[in-house]
Amino acid sequence: MSAIHESRRALLAALLAEHDVDALLVTRGVNVRYLTGLVSSNAAVLVRADATALLATDSRYIETARRVCDGVEVADRRDPAAALMEAAERPGIEAHVMSVAQYRRLGEPVALEGLVERLRVVKDETEIQALRSACELTDQAFADVTATLAAGMTERQVARALESRMTELGADRPAFDSIVASGPNGSVPHHAPSDRPIERGDLVTMDFGALYEGYHADMTRTVAVGAVAGWQRELYDLVRQAQRAGRRALAPGASTAEVDAAARDVIEDAGYGGHFGHGLGHGVGLEIHEDPFLRATGAGRLEDRVPITVEPGVYLPGRGGVRIEDTLVTRTDGPELLTRTTKELLVL
Amino acid sequence: MSAIHESRRALLAALLAEHDVDALLVTRGVNVRYLTGLVSSNAAVLVRADATALLATDSRYIETARRVCDGVEVADRRDPAAALMEAAERPGIEAHVMSVAQYRRLGEPVALEGLVERLRVVKDETEIQALRSACELTDQAFADVTATLAAGMTERQVARALESRMTELGADRPAFDSIVASGPNGSVPHHAPSDRPIERGDLVTMDFGALYEGYHADMTRTVAVGAVAGWQRELYDLVRQAQRAGRRALAPGASTAEVDAAARDVIEDAGYGGHFGHGLGHGVGLEIHEDPFLRATGAGRLEDRVPITVEPGVYLPGRGGVRIEDTLVTRTDGPELLTRTTKELLVL
Repeated sequence: MSAIHESRRALLAALLAEHDVDALLVTRGVNVRYLTGLVSSNAAVLVRADATALLATDSRYIETARRVCDGVEVADRRDPAAALMEAAERPGIEAHVMSVAQYRRLGEPVALEGLVERLRVVKDETEIQALRSACELTDQAFADVTATLAAGMTERQVARALESRMTELGADRPAFDSIVASGPNGSVPHHAPSDRPIERGDLVTMDFGALYEGYHADMTRTVAVGAVAGWQRELYDLVRQAQRAGRRALAPGASTAEVDAAARDVIEDAGYGGHFGHGLGHGVGLEIHEDPFLRATGAGRLEDRVPITVEPGVYLPGRGGVRIEDTLVTRTDGPELLTRTTKELLVL
Repeated sequence: MSAIHESRRALLAALLAEHDVDALLVTRGVNVRYLTGLVSSNAAVLVRADATALLATDSRYIETARRVCDGVEVADRRDPAAALMEAAERPGIEAHVMSVAQYRRLGEPVALEGLVERLRVVKDETEIQALRSACELTDQAFADVTATLAAGMTERQVARALESRMTELGADRPAFDSIVASGPNGSVPHHAPSDRPIERGDLVTMDFGALYEGYHADMTRTVAVGAVAGWQRELYDLVRQAQRAGRRALAPGASTAEVDAAARDVIEDAGYGGHFGHGLGHGVGLEIHEDPFLRATGAGRLEDRVPITVEPGVYLPGRGGVRIEDTLVTRTDGPELLTRTTKELLVL
């Protein structure tokens, strides 16, 4: 892995020439991981314009750092950011993550934004393979849990079953707090699983995913339990049609706003525009939500090899909701679908 | 719960009089939860000096917010912090969490630090009960998993077993990424579980805990597998003696540095001071690491009803390590032990 991290640092170093700094002090944990391979809650890495790098972390992580961080000088320090500030003449900092308090303590250095995040948008095939594995674990857990899902189980029980199954199958852990929303709870897009027992005639929305080697899968399916009413099937078909339109619009070069619109127009044309209040999707990788974001007001265009979710939903207060979400990767010859669970309406 | 949140907001409002502001814009998620009960990744609450409060969150959380946040005006906004800035004449912000970039976008308001965290140090009995339940789940998972732990299982398998068992027993999820470090890996305090199979003669350190109703349990035990060598038992007894000394020093009024010293002196006197490179412990609550911190260089004194860990360790590079950690609560009549698993050396 060290060659990958070295080339990432070289790309970052090249970016520094566009700014009035001789180094970037990287303090965001996920960015430190991206640039060095080290997973730590208290580490910083200084990447200089000449592509040399110096990492500091505390005694809890120092032995791992020395083993993992090839080609990086490693120092044992309690306050990594402060220690590294002295190793550059004019360092920039990550202004989108560094707190105002820390910034003042460090003497208000040059404030830069999102340089490493910019590099992280386009993934290499090693990253995509980790994400593919994460999505396979997610698909398998869904298959295993829905095989036993039935009226009477509570939302929390279903959420725990999904999470336990993912870790049994080999996930590092769930990629985020799972959502299981049944019946009327389905109208809350980010509903926390409750002790409500699932009833016959409910729609049940499950939004969950596996974390594997640091990469986050994200999938949502809405299923029917016992029976399905006409309005439920109509709502499902509408969201499915919108989701398909969104997926088809995913292409290198497409604007993020036009991808959002491709799905949103379907829902608006059916008269449900007011019931789809969130963006269409988001990038996934070392974070569960990262650039690019698919929103009506979004700027920017998609590139090749960008993992991203497509997840339209319609939410009817008091009645319920439907959301269908896949994780995909943009490709020049059409998007690669990573979450492969069927999008037929399952009646369990 | 709403009466609790209301009284917390009243305490915060009273603190504002000490600063030159008429409100505090609270943007840290865990602090928003503490003050309103709402769990959201994108919410902010403005608490005014007159103790009235205004919360903003986006459409994903708005229905939950309206249901949960009694006595708080709720608004549906995509950018909660920016929206709430306009609702006060001279608001302060949380400078220890707000990013430099956001601070600049908001026009550089008054920068305050740690006001809500200060309130959160001393817990009420409802919070302690949640933590007690989290620790019971942790104890039970340890008992269940060690009943089947044997040479040949990998570190990852043990970590997954602990995490699956906690969620099966009723935990929301693991409180943090579990550490399972066997044999020589035990010399890395924050070792990530690997595919190394546990061998006869290994010490195995397990550091893990359950999350329950938002509260984080934290426990570490080191066990021996198959057999125990003389140096291993000596090391274990030393750490156990240091941990006991640390626990006994926990008292309202004690300085955090003297509690750290109580345990550290035992290890230093035995000649292992250079192999205990981290602090003795940390507060736990809505965060896994929060004030107060027990460190050699710490300032401040303990109060009554403060949940805190005591976790000395000795780490011998190339050989292994031992750490023993409990979660306790300071009480005027002696600390209450929440993690009740035995500290006898288990030979499995």
